[in-house]
Amino acid sequence: MILITSRHLPFSCMNFHKKFLSISEKNNSLLCVGLDVDSEKIPGFLQKNHDSPLLEFNKNIIDATKDLVCGYKLNMAFYEQFGLGGIQLLVDTIAFIPKEILIILDGKRNDIGNTAARYAKSLFDVLHADAITINPYLGIDGVQPFLDYTDHVSFILCRTSNKSAGDFQDLTSGNQPVFEHVAHKIVEWNAHDNCGVVVGATYPEELKKIREIVGNKIPFLIPGIGKQGGDIQKTIEFGTNNQGHMAIINSSRGILYTDTSETYAKSARSEAVSLRDTINKFRKLKS
Amino acid sequence: MILITSRHLPFSCMNFHKKFLSISEKNNSLLCVGLDVDSEKIPGFLQKNHDSPLLEFNKNIIDATKDLVCGYKLNMAFYEQFGLGGIQLLVDTIAFIPKEILIILDGKRNDIGNTAARYAKSLFDVLHADAITINPYLGIDGVQPFLDYTDHVSFILCRTSNKSAGDFQDLTSGNQPVFEHVAHKIVEWNAHDNCGVVVGATYPEELKKIREIVGNKIPFLIPGIGKQGGDIQKTIEFGTNNQGHMAIINSSRGILYTDTSETYAKSARSEAVSLRDTINKFRKLKS
Repeated sequence: MILITSRHLPFSCMNFHKKFLSISEKNNSLLCVGLDVDSEKIPGFLQKNHDSPLLEFNKNIIDATKDLVCGYKLNMAFYEQFGLGGIQLLVDTIAFIPKEILIILDGKRNDIGNTAARYAKSLFDVLHADAITINPYLGIDGVQPFLDYTDHVSFILCRTSNKSAGDFQDLTSGNQPVFEHVAHKIVEWNAHDNCGVVVGATYPEELKKIREIVGNKIPFLIPGIGKQGGDIQKTIEFGTNNQGHMAIINSSRGILYTDTSETYAKSARSEAVSLRDTINKFRKLKS
Repeated sequence: MILITSRHLPFSCMNFHKKFLSISEKNNSLLCVGLDVDSEKIPGFLQKNHDSPLLEFNKNIIDATKDLVCGYKLNMAFYEQFGLGGIQLLVDTIAFIPKEILIILDGKRNDIGNTAARYAKSLFDVLHADAITINPYLGIDGVQPFLDYTDHVSFILCRTSNKSAGDFQDLTSGNQPVFEHVAHKIVEWNAHDNCGVVVGATYPEELKKIREIVGNKIPFLIPGIGKQGGDIQKTIEFGTNNQGHMAIINSSRGILYTDTSETYAKSARSEAVSLRDTINKFRKLKS
């Protein structure tokens, strides 16, 4: 019952950091496009002309942006909602992504040892993710099974981009908010150099604080620019390391859905060029 | 691309609380069997004699225990690890469960509004869960889309059963640990009477404290007895409400894998009878 995709050697087995460095240099980009494919938002003509309009949309977006990005992030909820057909769509989309580009499966999985090991197997071995997102609420028991995959990076939620992020993440304990405790634990858990941090662009001060805590080596996955309102300049200033690197800036809706006519892929490319170049402009100020 | 199962009217649309009351009375049981199906642990002869040994195992366990339980909990990691075939197994297992019995999909999903709504759709509309588990780290934004399904219960992680549960859940803020803040928020979020709480049986004092905070109306989902070491008497004393009810006691490995011979289903039944009756003995002391 093991599912097979066409993503095999050599790139799918490459260490995350080598792959990230290689593709971010080749494409001169820290931009990640979030493939949050939505049947209510893709151009209407695709629905009429294709058996698999969502796959057609993803393929055309990938073709239009693959020389502009360091990675694609697939939010698993957007695929799971369609049941078996959605999982097939996820597999087919992953298979279409060039092997040199990072694949981040955004599932925010969390469970304890025995069960977390199954999720890790599913995400890394079966679906061939280079990196994933996980939730830290269960402590190290829920994180270690993912970190045991030492060539892959696990991005751990620290300070999220949403309005109610502070409900628990900002509770103060011993003069530090919970999210700073999480950041300190991430440093402690990073023995194999394969922890990452998820921090929302919508909270630049928290972004700055977390980068100070974790130092220059840990990569950040940063959602929240564009439609969610995060400031790009502050995101780059505070989120990248001292070299203007080690941050992956995700945009989903702002790239995918600005045009619902037949020129949608061209428009997505224009948005991606613009965002990549804006990010690079601010990186230059830092490096 | 919508996936179809045979779970339709009338029970799959019944309000969770009505269904819970009805089945727990009929089977005189607060026991939930966790269908953590594992190809390395099921009897070897099933692997040789069946095209779908995992489904065969699940069906026989369900047939052997369906008059002894109030629900079945399916831990999604154990299914996702097999890719598409695993999702088919999940769907086929759900379809085989009698419609009067609760189905709890234990996925611990978490994400913000837009995305959480997709997970909710997947779990409730596509997979026909009566109840689910979710992680509270993102605050109300990550919980509300699930609570919008008012006939379903969302069990929110509060104090988990694992060793490192305290890494963040026990951080003290304003004289209360984080998990108590979560419990207070759950009371606040319970406007539609459809919040539940996940608390591990391995921490009886925390179980007691959380029941004190949330009162008698909110159901508990309690893993951690059996192999994980939770004490049954304390679990019932502290975890049920003042009527000795409103708690769902889950056991997975302790029911499923005590016998790997051809009598495995009969043995699973014996374990389930024993555990149900032990639970009921302690319930009588309370009610």
